[in-house]
Amino acid sequence: MSESDADFQAGSAGPVGVVKRAKRVAVLSPVAWRTPPRHYGAWETVASNLAEGLVARGWHVTLFATKDSITRARLHAVIDKGYEEDPAADPKVAEYLHIAEAFEHAGEFDLIHSHYDFMALSYSRLVRTPVLTTIHGFSSAKIMPIYEKYRDGYYVSISDADRAPALNYLATVYNGIDLSLYPFRERAGEHLIFLGRIHPDKGVHLAIEVARRSGRRLIIAGIVQDEAYFHERIEPHVNGGTVDYLGPVGVPGKNQLFAQASALLHLNTIPERFGLVLAEANAAGVPVIAMDLGSCREVIEDGKTGFLVRGPEQAVQALGRLAEIDRSACRRRVEQRFSIATMVSAYERVYATIFELEEAKRR
Amino acid sequence: MSESDADFQAGSAGPVGVVKRAKRVAVLSPVAWRTPPRHYGAWETVASNLAEGLVARGWHVTLFATKDSITRARLHAVIDKGYEEDPAADPKVAEYLHIAEAFEHAGEFDLIHSHYDFMALSYSRLVRTPVLTTIHGFSSAKIMPIYEKYRDGYYVSISDADRAPALNYLATVYNGIDLSLYPFRERAGEHLIFLGRIHPDKGVHLAIEVARRSGRRLIIAGIVQDEAYFHERIEPHVNGGTVDYLGPVGVPGKNQLFAQASALLHLNTIPERFGLVLAEANAAGVPVIAMDLGSCREVIEDGKTGFLVRGPEQAVQALGRLAEIDRSACRRRVEQRFSIATMVSAYERVYATIFELEEAKRR
Repeated sequence: MSESDADFQAGSAGPVGVVKRAKRVAVLSPVAWRTPPRHYGAWETVASNLAEGLVARGWHVTLFATKDSITRARLHAVIDKGYEEDPAADPKVAEYLHIAEAFEHAGEFDLIHSHYDFMALSYSRLVRTPVLTTIHGFSSAKIMPIYEKYRDGYYVSISDADRAPALNYLATVYNGIDLSLYPFRERAGEHLIFLGRIHPDKGVHLAIEVARRSGRRLIIAGIVQDEAYFHERIEPHVNGGTVDYLGPVGVPGKNQLFAQASALLHLNTIPERFGLVLAEANAAGVPVIAMDLGSCREVIEDGKTGFLVRGPEQAVQALGRLAEIDRSACRRRVEQRFSIATMVSAYERVYATIFELEEAKRR
Repeated sequence: MSESDADFQAGSAGPVGVVKRAKRVAVLSPVAWRTPPRHYGAWETVASNLAEGLVARGWHVTLFATKDSITRARLHAVIDKGYEEDPAADPKVAEYLHIAEAFEHAGEFDLIHSHYDFMALSYSRLVRTPVLTTIHGFSSAKIMPIYEKYRDGYYVSISDADRAPALNYLATVYNGIDLSLYPFRERAGEHLIFLGRIHPDKGVHLAIEVARRSGRRLIIAGIVQDEAYFHERIEPHVNGGTVDYLGPVGVPGKNQLFAQASALLHLNTIPERFGLVLAEANAAGVPVIAMDLGSCREVIEDGKTGFLVRGPEQAVQALGRLAEIDRSACRRRVEQRFSIATMVSAYERVYATIFELEEAKRR
C-alpha cells in the first residue's frame, strides 16, 4: 500500500473522511457477464474492483449486478446470469430490467455510480439521486446524441485520450488492477505475447508481422471477437511453432504467458481507450511495445516501461532495445498509477466532489 | 358514424364527459417510422389514428413521435426521423432518448399511453403519472420477465387471442382503420391477393400453393422482411403471370389490389395478433380466407365476411364458396368493430377507468 492510500483506510481521517463514507453508494455493473467476470468482461472487472475496494474502506456499497455475482458489498440482482453466458436471455430485456431496478431504488442511495454506458443516463433525470457515469468507451459516433442531452451529468473518463469535448468531466480515473494477481518476475522470458480480443482493432495481424520479421515466437491468447478476421488473418499463421494461439485465458494463463514473455505486443489500429492488459503486463515486469494511439502513452512511459511505436517496423526496432527497460520500474509505475488502491482513492475524491456540489445545490 | 360513437363527440356529455377530456394525455408512438408511417409501420399507424381521433374529440393530446411526424396533436419530438429510415441513427439510442423524453415530461400529463413495447415500462415506476400500455405483440418469450415485473400496470390487448395470462388487462381494443381510405366496392375482382410482410409467419408460400392448386392468379404485395425466405420460397414462383410480386404498396396500391381481388389470402403459420389487413380488405368488400390461428376468428366471421381454414386445402375449397359472402356485410362489420371511431371510443372508456382507479388510490 502506498503512503497516500493509507489516508483512505476505513475509520481514518483524510481528504475523504468518516462522514463521507457514511454515504450509501450504488455501483451499477453491466450484466453482460458475472461481476467479477470469469474471463473476459473489462467493465464488470472495474465495477468489481471498485465495489470491493470501497467496502474495504468502509463505504456502504450496494452492487447491482447478476445474481451469480460475488461481492462483499450488498448484492442487488434481478438478472440470473450474464446475458452473454445465458442462451435463454434477451440482452435488451436484461438491460432494461437491470437498470430500471437500480433507479427504482435510487431513494436508498446518496450516489449511483453507473458503469452502464449511455443507457443508464436516460433514467438519471427521473430520480433525485446524483448519477456518476464512468464512460468505459464510446462504442460509436451514433451514441453521442444521448451524451449530448445528458452532458451536464457527472462523468469520469478512463483516460485523457478517451474524452468527448462537451461533457462535464470531473476527472480521469485509470482502471486499477489487482496487483496481487500479477506477481513481479525479475527474469524476462524469450517470446513475444499478444493478449486481448482477437479483433482488427487490436492489431493481432501486426503482432504476427513483427514476430515474422524479428524471427521470434509469438503466443496469442484472447477471445475471438471477429470470426472472419480470425479465420482469414490469424489462423493461417498459427502453426504451433512460431505463432501459437491458446484461446481465451484467465489469470493463471496470463501469468504463464508473462513468464514466457520478453515483451507484450499491442499494436492497436484505433485509439486505445485504456489498455488494462498493458498495465497487467507491466505489473509482471513485462515491457510493452504499444502503438502510440489513444491512451497508450498514458499507460506506457516510452523508453521506461516499454516503447511507443507507429507501426510494425518501429516495433521490430524496439525489440532490439528491450534490454534498456528496467523491469522493476515497470512494476513500480503500475503500483503508483494503476493499482486498485489508486483507483479507489481517485473515485473517493470524485464522490467527495459530487457530494459537495450537491450540497451546494441544496443550499 | 355509428350511434354509440355520437356519445363521444367533443363537447357532448356521455360516459366520457367534458371533464374527463380536460385531462392531458401523452401518446407515446414508436420511432421506427414516422407517425403516421409512409408505408409499413403498424404501431405508428395505430398511435396516429388514436392521437388524431382523441384530438377531434377535444382531448389535450401530446404525441411523442419523430420530428417529421404529422399530427393535429401537440408534437413533442427529439428524434429527427424513424431509425428505419435514417442510416445515421442507432435504434437503441433513438429509443432510449425518445422514451426518456416522454417520462421526463410525465408531470405535464394525466396519462401516458405507451405504444412502445416493454421498454417504456421500465420507466413507469419512476413517475407518478399512470402509464397505459397497449401491447401490440409479444415479440418473443424472452421479453416476458419484464411484463411479469410490471404486471400490475395498466394494459390493453389488441385481441383476446394475444394475451399473457398474468397481466392486468383493462380491455381488448381492436385496432381501428380509417374507413375513408378503403372505399367499398360492390363488384368482386378476379384474382387472389396477399398483402403483408414477406415472412414465413405470414404464410406467403401457402398463398402461392393455393393459387397453383386453384389455377387462379395471385398478386403479392408487401415489404420483404425475411430475405432468405423471399429468395428461396417466393421469388422462384414469381413469373409475371400466375404469381406477381409488386413490392411494398401504400394505400392507393392497396385499393388497386382490392379492386382486382376476389379474395385476400392470409394463411398465417403462427397465431395472428391482430390482422389489420384483414379488416382493410373487408372494408373494401373483399372476403378474406384466413388461417384459424390467433385473432383471425375475432376479425373474420366464418362464412359471413370470409372463411377460417386450417390449411391450403381448405382454402382451395373455400374459394369455391366465395359467392356465399355478402360483400356489404364485410363492410358493415368493419364499420361496427374496426373503425377508428370505435377504437377511440373504447380507449376513452379505458382512460376513464384509469382516472377513476387513480382517484380511488388517492382517496
